[in-house]
Parts: sequence; C-alpha cells; structure tokens
Amino acid sequence: MSTSCVGVLGGGSWGTAIANILAENGQRALLYVKDKESREEINRDHRNTHYLPEFQLSTSLHAVDTVEEVARRCRLIVMAVPTSAFREVARELGDFVQGDQIILSASKGFELESFKRMTEILKEETCCKKVGALSGPNLAKEIMAKQPCATVVASQYREVIQAGAGAIHAERFRVYLNEDVVGVEVGGAMKNIYAIASGILGGLAFGANTEAMTVTRALAEMVRVGERVGAKASTFTGLAGMGDLIVTCGSALSRNYRVGFGLGQGKKLEEVVAALGMTAEGVRTTKAVHQFAQREGLYVPIAEGMYRVLYEQAGIGEIMAGLMTRHARYEIDDLP
Amino acid sequence: MSTSCVGVLGGGSWGTAIANILAENGQRALLYVKDKESREEINRDHRNTHYLPEFQLSTSLHAVDTVEEVARRCRLIVMAVPTSAFREVARELGDFVQGDQIILSASKGFELESFKRMTEILKEETCCKKVGALSGPNLAKEIMAKQPCATVVASQYREVIQAGAGAIHAERFRVYLNEDVVGVEVGGAMKNIYAIASGILGGLAFGANTEAMTVTRALAEMVRVGERVGAKASTFTGLAGMGDLIVTCGSALSRNYRVGFGLGQGKKLEEVVAALGMTAEGVRTTKAVHQFAQREGLYVPIAEGMYRVLYEQAGIGEIMAGLMTRHARYEIDDLP
Repeated sequence: MSTSCVGVLGGGSWGTAIANILAENGQRALLYVKDKESREEINRDHRNTHYLPEFQLSTSLHAVDTVEEVARRCRLIVMAVPTSAFREVARELGDFVQGDQIILSASKGFELESFKRMTEILKEETCCKKVGALSGPNLAKEIMAKQPCATVVASQYREVIQAGAGAIHAERFRVYLNEDVVGVEVGGAMKNIYAIASGILGGLAFGANTEAMTVTRALAEMVRVGERVGAKASTFTGLAGMGDLIVTCGSALSRNYRVGFGLGQGKKLEEVVAALGMTAEGVRTTKAVHQFAQREGLYVPIAEGMYRVLYEQAGIGEIMAGLMTRHARYEIDDLP
Repeated sequence: MSTSCVGVLGGGSWGTAIANILAENGQRALLYVKDKESREEINRDHRNTHYLPEFQLSTSLHAVDTVEEVARRCRLIVMAVPTSAFREVARELGDFVQGDQIILSASKGFELESFKRMTEILKEETCCKKVGALSGPNLAKEIMAKQPCATVVASQYREVIQAGAGAIHAERFRVYLNEDVVGVEVGGAMKNIYAIASGILGGLAFGANTEAMTVTRALAEMVRVGERVGAKASTFTGLAGMGDLIVTCGSALSRNYRVGFGLGQGKKLEEVVAALGMTAEGVRTTKAVHQFAQREGLYVPIAEGMYRVLYEQAGIGEIMAGLMTRHARYEIDDLP
C-alpha cells in the first residue's frame, strides 16, 4: 500500500477547502467526490463551482471516484460527508483501510437515536483506532480567501494529533491541539442548533445584546450536554466550542444561520432548506440533542425551543417569550 | 434619610440607560449628571441628546446636580462614571453615604498602576461594605430600543445581589446573579482591549474566522488574568465574560470596536478618539493590563500586541504577524 497521499471524503465546501489546504501544504491530496460532473470539473479546471464558485483550487488536489482509492492510497483520511451519510461512508471505508491508518472526522453532528459522535461511528465501522476530530471556526469561503484562522485537531491519541497537525497546519490556518475529542465533537455539532436560533433573531431584526445573551446561554447548554457524555467544560471555551459558536452564529456565510434567518423572516423550513441547496446539519442535530436531552433529563431550553420550532410548528414568538422568563437566576448552575 | 429612590452617578449612555431601566421599573430614579445643559435637557425634555439622541427617557428619571443628593436619597446607587474619574467620584460619595447603602459599579476598567477593580476602590473610599458590580452584554442603545438582553449583578453579598436584581430586573432586561464579583469585573474590563483588536481586524476587512479566533484566544487571556486575581474561570464563560466580549467585539455600536476600526483603516489614535467624542475605556485598560501582566509575568499576547500598537507606535501588520506564530500548540494551557 502506498501511503504517500492524504485524502478527504466529501466534496462539499468544507471537504474541498480541507483538501485544498492539504494540497497547498505540499502533499498530494485525493478528494473523493460522489458527483461525476464536480469531479471532472475539479480535475480539469481546478474549481468546484457549486460550493466554492469564486476560488481556484490547487493543482495538487485530485478528485477520485471511489472511497476505495482514498482508503488504499492515503495514510491520513479526513471524513467530510454530511452526518446523515457518515455511517454508510465509514462502513465502505472500513472495507479497505488498515489498522495503522489515521482517520479524522470533520463532519459535525450526532447520529440520530444513538447520539453517537462521528469518531464513535468510525471506530465501529473500521478497524482503525487512531481516529480524531477536526473542528473550529472555519467558514470554508474565508479559508479559501486566505483569511487567517485557527482550528482544532483532537484525539485521545497523540500520534493522531501530531499527524493531523503536521498535515494541516499552515501559516494562515493555525492548528491547536486538544486531547478532549468528545468536547470538540460535541461543540462542533451543537453550535449548529444555536446558529439557527441566532439566524432567527437576525431575521427578526434583533440586535447584538440579544444575540450575545443567546450565544452565551447556548454555551452553557453545550457544556451541560458535553459533560454528560464525558467532555471537559474547558474545551467549550476554546476554538471548537465558543470559537465555532461565534462564527456560526454571527456570519451570514453560515448555512445554519441562513436557515434560521429565513425562519425569522417568516418563511417555511422546507422553503429555506431548498433555497440553501446544501446540508444544514443543525436541523438534524436539533433532533438528536432533543432525543438525548429528553432521555437524560438535561436542561437545554434553547435547543428544546428550536426543536419545537423545527419539528412541532411552534410559533417563534411563543418560544422567545418562554425563553425570556421572569425570574432572576444564578448564572452558573441555573438548573430549573 | 429617605431611601425611597435609586440613583445613578454618571450621565453617559450607559448610566442614562441604567437610570432609565430603574425608572421604568417603577422606582424614582436620580441621575447625577455633571454637565448642566444635559441635566436641564433630561429634566425638561426627558432626552439625553449627546449620548442617546434617538430615545425618550422615563418621566420618573430626574437629573440632579450633586453626588450628595444621590448619596443622601438613594438606598441603591449605581456608579457609571469613566474609570479615570472613578476614585474621585467615589471619594465624594464617601463623604455622604452610610454603611447600610448598597453601591454597584457599572464602570468597566482597572485603576492604572494599582490594577484595582472598581469595587475595591468603592470599599476604600466609602464606608459601604455592600458593594457589587453590574456587567454584561449591554449596548446602551439596544437597551433603550427594548431589545431583549441579559446582564449580571455580582457581589460577595447576597443582599447586594438581591437588591440589585430586584431593582434592575425587567422583562426585556434579564438579570443573572453571580457571586464571583472579581471575575465579573475582570471580564467587563478586559473585553474592551479585545474590542479594539477586533475593530482593527474589521478595519483591515478580515472575516469571521479571524475574528472568532481572536475572540476565543482573548477569552483565554481574560481567564489567565482573572485567575491570578482570584476570579473563577467559569465566570468567563458567562454573560460578563464571553457574552460581553462577543457583543463588544462584534458590534459597530461598541466604542472600543470603533476605535480599533479606525486604527485598522490607518487612522491615528488621537484622531479616532477625538472623532468618537466619548470615553473608550479599552485604551486605558490596555495599559493597566500591560502593567499588571509585566509585573506578574502573565502571558497575554493579544493585550501586549494592543499595548504596542496603542502606546509604542508598533505597526499593525507586524503585531498581527507576531500573533500568528508558526507552531501548533495545545489549546488549553498554551503557555509559551
């Protein structure tokens, strides 16, 4: 097996941007792209018009048409497929990888019902133990525009952290390391729920105070859920927690924010999701967190409010009023 | 002594907004305003044109011309003067208050050289022990516009927290309580430094990823300084830490952000401060934190970078390059 390449599975904006960083860092990067036209366009014109229309890709980035090719040729593989397809793609990958390969999940979400994180699915579906997560405040278009930014590579295994950082770290894409992979994954997943909430506030023309209150209380919810599954609270004050939360809740480049913005303007969910034309993970993550919180008796009022808006046709005004309760509370440990 | 009133010292935008909330909550609110014209305008037209030109004030809000009147008539007094005048006003207040009165500081900063917090100065200059701080993501204009928001009342004394919350809590101005007054004051003060940094990034047209990275690393600096003076790390994940940081770093309504924005556009500090026409506390706070960090050997690279820009005429490009170092680091405990 040749392992001179690094690979990415998933040719969306995030997967393409990661593959492009790997390629620009002087590595031969393989990108598995399901769609034939996109694949041909990447290899012929070095562009991915559907997701990143404004940018030229590295000529060291090559689109391939099978998971197998990435699995057989790459020592480091990054998964950047939608979470709804994650287990299926991981299973296919599992047919070809060997135990010494390193796999990072860049997909942000939980499996429905099981509430499993993506690295848990990787361990179940492949023979690789050396898995980790890549997460942080990383809007793909800004990465492509060479805006300075930072990300986190997280794993229980130092070897994974070092290999990931070694491949990905660049002058304008600074990698921080974290051993708390659980916290990094929970943060990356849950922030999409609150991006929808922030988008709703934006669509309703609320200001910065309201936004900051929501984002801050959102962080407290993330910590509560994270601690229940073994994460460290301190991780949530880092790039994959607060950092990603800020960027996703504050930028119109964020898909989940845009979904919320449309809802805030009074549009229907189906309508805004269709107009987006890409996956907005937050809709699914809201359901996963709702299921988990119900089962565990966790207090996540904003996530529950979003669940009622997204899945039970609750009115936004009613949910907002419910969240702005009348009693003063202690800030930390504000259980009901 | 009649103590039926509540009082605010300082007729800037923040002091006026607080006094207006107190008045709208059904209390007789006295606002000490130094400037004669502003005082007359508030009492005659119920407006404060210089600071809050778009808004009508409550008719239960009365501007008064001495600190003494507030001290003699109010059971609860909020200090909202610039930190540069804080000790002087506190000393004057100290001549008139009695030990059972409650004083909250809404001023955000440290005393130069001594690095004392405002509640420490209150204890030194008055006979009142029952002091606390009021801080949070609270842009005055958005409060006046009745945007829903939240704030923190912090004190070591439950009685202070309860009196403060009782007077201030309103349906659209939700009060959270916190016993860690040190953390709340450090957060409120330091965020202004990072607002200048964020403004610079904005002025240089950097995007949301860069902003989120900066704000997240800023929080780590705030925690380091806070813990050195006895604050709890968890307070910084709350409204007076992260919440206020987000709002101040993300809104063009923030004065300190505007100072940074002008610097990022290549203007001189004197020029942007003059154009602002109000106090931007961050310039002074940067110096106070620099002095303290030097003395204590604390690692606060963003604050130090801002000090070099504001006080040592360092070039912004040079400082930015220094902050984006080349090595991957662990996220938590990333001491040099």
